[in-house]
Amino acid sequence: MLALRLIERKRDGGHIEPGEWRALAYAYAAGHVPDYQMASFLMACFLRGLDRSETHALTDAMLRSGDTLELGYLNRPRIDKHSTGGVGDKVSIVLAPLIASLGVAVPMMSGRGLGHTGGTLDKLESIPGFDTNMALYEARKLLETLNCALFGQTEEIAPADRKMYALRDATGTVESIPLIAASIMSKKLAEGLTGLVLDVKRGSGAFLPDLERGLELANTMIALGADQKCPVVALVTAMDRPLGRACGNALEVEESIAALKGEGPADLMDVTYALGAEMLLLADVTKDRAEARAMMEAQIASGKAAEHFQRIIEAQGGNPSVVDDPAILPQSKEVELFVAARRGFISRVEPRTIGRGIAALGGGRTKMEDKLDLSVGFVITARPGDWVEQGEPIATIFARDRSGVESGRATLRAAVTIADEAELPLPLVSHRVTSAGVEVLAR
Amino acid sequence: MLALRLIERKRDGGHIEPGEWRALAYAYAAGHVPDYQMASFLMACFLRGLDRSETHALTDAMLRSGDTLELGYLNRPRIDKHSTGGVGDKVSIVLAPLIASLGVAVPMMSGRGLGHTGGTLDKLESIPGFDTNMALYEARKLLETLNCALFGQTEEIAPADRKMYALRDATGTVESIPLIAASIMSKKLAEGLTGLVLDVKRGSGAFLPDLERGLELANTMIALGADQKCPVVALVTAMDRPLGRACGNALEVEESIAALKGEGPADLMDVTYALGAEMLLLADVTKDRAEARAMMEAQIASGKAAEHFQRIIEAQGGNPSVVDDPAILPQSKEVELFVAARRGFISRVEPRTIGRGIAALGGGRTKMEDKLDLSVGFVITARPGDWVEQGEPIATIFARDRSGVESGRATLRAAVTIADEAELPLPLVSHRVTSAGVEVLAR
Repeated sequence: MLALRLIERKRDGGHIEPGEWRALAYAYAAGHVPDYQMASFLMACFLRGLDRSETHALTDAMLRSGDTLELGYLNRPRIDKHSTGGVGDKVSIVLAPLIASLGVAVPMMSGRGLGHTGGTLDKLESIPGFDTNMALYEARKLLETLNCALFGQTEEIAPADRKMYALRDATGTVESIPLIAASIMSKKLAEGLTGLVLDVKRGSGAFLPDLERGLELANTMIALGADQKCPVVALVTAMDRPLGRACGNALEVEESIAALKGEGPADLMDVTYALGAEMLLLADVTKDRAEARAMMEAQIASGKAAEHFQRIIEAQGGNPSVVDDPAILPQSKEVELFVAARRGFISRVEPRTIGRGIAALGGGRTKMEDKLDLSVGFVITARPGDWVEQGEPIATIFARDRSGVESGRATLRAAVTIADEAELPLPLVSHRVTSAGVEVLAR
Repeated sequence: MLALRLIERKRDGGHIEPGEWRALAYAYAAGHVPDYQMASFLMACFLRGLDRSETHALTDAMLRSGDTLELGYLNRPRIDKHSTGGVGDKVSIVLAPLIASLGVAVPMMSGRGLGHTGGTLDKLESIPGFDTNMALYEARKLLETLNCALFGQTEEIAPADRKMYALRDATGTVESIPLIAASIMSKKLAEGLTGLVLDVKRGSGAFLPDLERGLELANTMIALGADQKCPVVALVTAMDRPLGRACGNALEVEESIAALKGEGPADLMDVTYALGAEMLLLADVTKDRAEARAMMEAQIASGKAAEHFQRIIEAQGGNPSVVDDPAILPQSKEVELFVAARRGFISRVEPRTIGRGIAALGGGRTKMEDKLDLSVGFVITARPGDWVEQGEPIATIFARDRSGVESGRATLRAAVTIADEAELPLPLVSHRVTSAGVEVLAR
């Protein structure tokens, strides 16, 4: 009866009170509200919207439906980074050990890939033995000793959100800014953070391609953080092309290790340093952005960042020699070059096409149950704006068999456009959003 | 995947094609689309609306998801009457035998009561032995011999609608005019009608209290009928007070029998004759409304209408002597008068309060599984506008025990208002709606 009343009220544009959000979230998590009632309610939320107090109450209700990390006893700043997701986005794997090596706790709870975007958990699991399943007390222990835990949403964390997210995925109610913001923030707040840096992707490969919607999401999450005394800073970064060169699970881990050793591609490093600087500023490790960047560069140059990643890998059951010898990562059977069909400027490398192409190779999911081949993917060396000659290699295809190679060729033919004129890509890091407002960094 | 695509399209205000409605309705009836996806889709339909072609396609898809009566071989007009539902509305029980006795086939598929409104099936089942469960071939046989079958929606008829209606009831998606119209018309068209008369109730006790919404429903159903070559005529009638005096299952059957014998209350007879005349005109039994009324009055005066009801009762397994001796209907243990608390004009008899009061006595449902006590209810002799003295009996309570009598008193105290000034009730039959437009009969 409660659910039906709330459905009807939201349907008619009414307001749901904090106590009602809590009752609904608890009842749903406990199985007392059937999926069909929640589905109807979520569609009403999608179409009628949630005001700020409702979004806050929903976040809080989902957060309190489960356990939290409770890390206050660490007496250290606890900062996480969250990305809205994209193709080739391996920043978490570089940032977590890098920032942890600088004395900041990074309780990084991540997700799996779905649709055209990859997931940090899948990528990490390409390291032999690496285990991302852990209970909260285990994550706490890792944070005590290494300032870092790389793990998945446990059953204990925000169970109402877990269940609701799966339902939204099946009922056409995903792309709602209040529902997205509440879902992300309920999990992030469960990490017991003292600050959160948000990477809001924009461009054709982003979950919300429009800048305006991205900024709306950022502002919603900043407000939710403020309500819970967790400052949130967002950077808007480009996802009109893949980030870095490697796209595919093991390939991205290899590129991340290279980045931790100072050999990462420039765009990946720029985004990593920009987000990392915000983390260090929030953690009060320094008050100066240039100094923050210098600190990170020094950790990489000295080998301390890579070494810290090695310790994390070992602590999570993985084979730490991967850092010295990436060849122990899963290797695809077929490796083949892809060359430019004509001379000209690389004008587009379409991330959605690449992301779907990885899934077609067996390296991504269309359903949550899909088993992945972690070895497959693409390394795309040509960047938008590059001049290429006909026949020049612009990418490498990693596939499990010949038909995979053919599928990979088709993907690259569709994703990469070569034209007579160069097209201006989006600036890599374009906006900085805080509770004080939006700062334009590049146009 | 189909369902998710259609959810997203309707959510974004798009159009669903006829073939897609059919695929969705079939897949849902067959269990291939889960309830949670249909619930989300129905909420999107509720909030985004359906255009005329979509409403038509949904009706057609639900109609074709099951069997139909196929009565063309009868070579007789086949006319039904449908009411949007109210309190004390026993018109179907009077009209069906009356019109059938005049040579028109009346394949009357009815429903059960839910919430504050009663249902024809429940009422008829108060006749000892009367069976409303039958297969379509049995209904056809009754229509061949007696021009009338009084039955419930079988499993064979519009299974997609059956399932969808139950889901709408639980998911806050009932009060949508296109969904209501499609649900009713898919069942009515399955009766193989040559015409349909619609009784659209308005006023506080109606499902859609506003005249405007009632007219919108009428026009939607008229258009759906036209699409399927089934002319529909609607009358708007008053439901700001109960119809007739008896409210409650067996009590209403008793009043219906009285009506068939020429002893019905004036308001019940007026509505019955008005709707019956439309049925006879649609059936082309006569072209003149006054003649239609005279024919019906003659059937009642001669005893032929009551006799025809007796035959129908017998054919459906009921005890036909009920027509001569209504005392064989279930009798409540407690019968008590209710008197006016003050002198004045009866200004309101609130039908929703009465309807809920019947449910409180055990004679109505809040859930579809509830078992009913068919004997309980009210006979309310005072009508809005009547002058009453303090202590004058204005109603009788029929209850199963003393606490029922107390509950009945509370109901009547809340439902009946006595004031110094008479309030003008709604005109009994106010509008006639056809495909040609709306005719105002009374203001």
